Amino acid sequence: MTSLNETHDPARRSFIGSANAPGNEFPIQNLPVGVFRPAAGAQPRVGVAIGDQILDLPAAVSAFNGVAAEAARAGAAPALNPLISLGPRAWSALRLALSRALSAEHADERLRAHLTPITQATLDMPVAVRNFSDFFASVFHATNTGRAFRPDHPLLPNYKYLPVAYHGRASSIRPSGTPVRRPRGQRKPANEQAPSYGPSRNLDFELELGFYVGVPSEFGATVPIGKAAEHIFGFCLLNDWSARDVQAWEAQPLGPFLAKSFATTVSPWAVTAEALAPFRMAAFARPEGDPQPLPYLDDAEDRARGGLAVTLEAYIASAAMRRARTAPLLITRTSSANLYWTVAQMLAHQASNGCNLEVGDLIGSGTVSGPEKSSWASLLELTGRGAEPIALPGGERRGFIEDGDEIIFRGFAEKPGYPRIGFGECRAVVLPAK
Amino acid sequence: MTSLNETHDPARRSFIGSANAPGNEFPIQNLPVGVFRPAAGAQPRVGVAIGDQILDLPAAVSAFNGVAAEAARAGAAPALNPLISLGPRAWSALRLALSRALSAEHADERLRAHLTPITQATLDMPVAVRNFSDFFASVFHATNTGRAFRPDHPLLPNYKYLPVAYHGRASSIRPSGTPVRRPRGQRKPANEQAPSYGPSRNLDFELELGFYVGVPSEFGATVPIGKAAEHIFGFCLLNDWSARDVQAWEAQPLGPFLAKSFATTVSPWAVTAEALAPFRMAAFARPEGDPQPLPYLDDAEDRARGGLAVTLEAYIASAAMRRARTAPLLITRTSSANLYWTVAQMLAHQASNGCNLEVGDLIGSGTVSGPEKSSWASLLELTGRGAEPIALPGGERRGFIEDGDEIIFRGFAEKPGYPRIGFGECRAVVLPAK
Repeated sequence: MTSLNETHDPARRSFIGSANAPGNEFPIQNLPVGVFRPAAGAQPRVGVAIGDQILDLPAAVSAFNGVAAEAARAGAAPALNPLISLGPRAWSALRLALSRALSAEHADERLRAHLTPITQATLDMPVAVRNFSDFFASVFHATNTGRAFRPDHPLLPNYKYLPVAYHGRASSIRPSGTPVRRPRGQRKPANEQAPSYGPSRNLDFELELGFYVGVPSEFGATVPIGKAAEHIFGFCLLNDWSARDVQAWEAQPLGPFLAKSFATTVSPWAVTAEALAPFRMAAFARPEGDPQPLPYLDDAEDRARGGLAVTLEAYIASAAMRRARTAPLLITRTSSANLYWTVAQMLAHQASNGCNLEVGDLIGSGTVSGPEKSSWASLLELTGRGAEPIALPGGERRGFIEDGDEIIFRGFAEKPGYPRIGFGECRAVVLPAK
Repeated sequence: MTSLNETHDPARRSFIGSANAPGNEFPIQNLPVGVFRPAAGAQPRVGVAIGDQILDLPAAVSAFNGVAAEAARAGAAPALNPLISLGPRAWSALRLALSRALSAEHADERLRAHLTPITQATLDMPVAVRNFSDFFASVFHATNTGRAFRPDHPLLPNYKYLPVAYHGRASSIRPSGTPVRRPRGQRKPANEQAPSYGPSRNLDFELELGFYVGVPSEFGATVPIGKAAEHIFGFCLLNDWSARDVQAWEAQPLGPFLAKSFATTVSPWAVTAEALAPFRMAAFARPEGDPQPLPYLDDAEDRARGGLAVTLEAYIASAAMRRARTAPLLITRTSSANLYWTVAQMLAHQASNGCNLEVGDLIGSGTVSGPEKSSWASLLELTGRGAEPIALPGGERRGFIEDGDEIIFRGFAEKPGYPRIGFGECRAVVLPAK
């Protein structure tokens, strides 16, 4: 990951007052990028979140010079891809220019004309996703889900040797706020003789960290583990919605297909790898006796820095709760520092067969369950496949997601003496099957 | 599928003489489309194969009127996607206009100026593939591959109820002629204590039929089985290269990932669904006692028409064979009529959860093995996992693919009294791992 520089100075403040409020998600040390429409009917374009405002990047191009201006100009597009394609030097130059121009010290007052309150804007899909793959990088999640099938040996023999993953579906990825329709599918409960096709009865969320590929690789070439992090542009929250009953019936022998392809929700901002550089920590250690990673997955520096620590939370708000204006209920809080594999290991593994990465590829971590029940990151785990439902305020209970429920993810990185780096929300209401 | 019309008249001949030669792949009843460059350095554009020539479609636009002219104009692109996006009426209008203008009867001699011999052209990737999914639709292949793990019950319980599939990787799909580098990967033979990372030792091909989605579907909407065929633009040959040793180790519990994502090869022409309309036949019947398809997969007309019958062949030519100018060796010949599921069933199933189809999606049938050993469509099956190698002319033997081997697929539809509808070749040489 990028080394630290003046953009990481925790003392830097913005002339946009809301960016300096304690606990605010978008301080001047964050500067996440996304795609927004300032008003109904406006063309989507790239924006930067700062406090409670969005800076219209292409409109502000005259405030920048050189490669930063080029990056701002590439923001005149309905997706981040053209900006991302300019490469890491441009990302860094833009971040530095934004950090200075938005600072209280250098305050470029011209930028005020290009701000829209976040609450007034529509946030679109940030990246035109080329390919989507999803890992299984939490050993706690893998253990929890394997236990039902293999009580004595919940982890499969390959788990500690390679970051297991599957290819997902790019077409059905949607930004936060897009409702998700409950999928129909084939499911065969153990007590029924034959399968039937109908609305999933076991709809679940999976709380994940996602990351966008910013630097492509060539067809037939691998990416050395020591270079893997350089290919990552930024991060998002990701809900890998899962129809558990469909998955249980369809997934042998080729893995999940329709159980997950109906929808994937991502948060609207790409929090850059550079913004998260201060948040590596050796929170998770491979247990004594676990195999050492094979050389193509082992990098001394990556190992020393440890995992990326992003706190991830999931909330639920039923239709009744929303009607009663009850606050969403926190149902899990975990951290990406719990993952068994680092994002560099996931990316290096994915490219280890010569499969080429493309700008705009989205890679998910898999469900980020931690060791404690309070950090399990799916209802499957939290409710023991529905057997121990969660109690909601107002008396409802949830084994799995019901129609009208809204699932809300929040994420942030924080540490003492440093402003909180927030991700914004990843939320969606579940609609009844058609 | 489309009903028959004058473009299917078996008596129609072209004024391009080579198109009328018996056994020629591209008679006037075929008219497949692809992307080609007429000379080195030229811009890629859409072409139509006729006999041994390619018609430069956008260059010939003045020979057409109305929606056919619009379709020809959309051919001024490096992929078929803009043309495909015009929809089925445009495809049919273009086919009709081409069939007339290229006929001996109507002979539009202006077209001669826009022909390039196929042997002089470079054929590129025909479609910018958006999403790739691959089915497992041959019950013979599923049985052959399942037998190693479950000798008594080789088929899993879900097989006869749903068309099993997995999501593949779109970025690494390449057109015929692009060499494929042997992938590295993790593999753990049973006789080794721990896995290692290195070149796959069990590289295989899978002989498949592919099809391109031409009509999208909406996020959250399903596609009724009776409408499914209307979403298909055309067909290709597809080699789902597979590293069997990598697959055996990585694929639990989420299915194949790196074992297949390193490369997928497709033939350069999209043979349109309309060109193949005469080749439905009830060659395969669900055995007595098999479950009836659930209603969302059952269409009386689709059932009555039967499977699409495309003969598929695989050949091998080792480096030594090519040096000795020995003809490639035919190692299998099968037919897509052997598939347990029709393409309409595959497409309807894929969309049955509301996952949206996009123009340019590629869907593979899975390995098209037939009932007899001579029609098994992978080396895994043909050689019993390498235990019974194939003898090549010159004394070599092959359990799996070796470096320098070229794998060549050919495909065609034929029936008495009708010209042969060919697919062209899908070939690639395997290069040693880096």
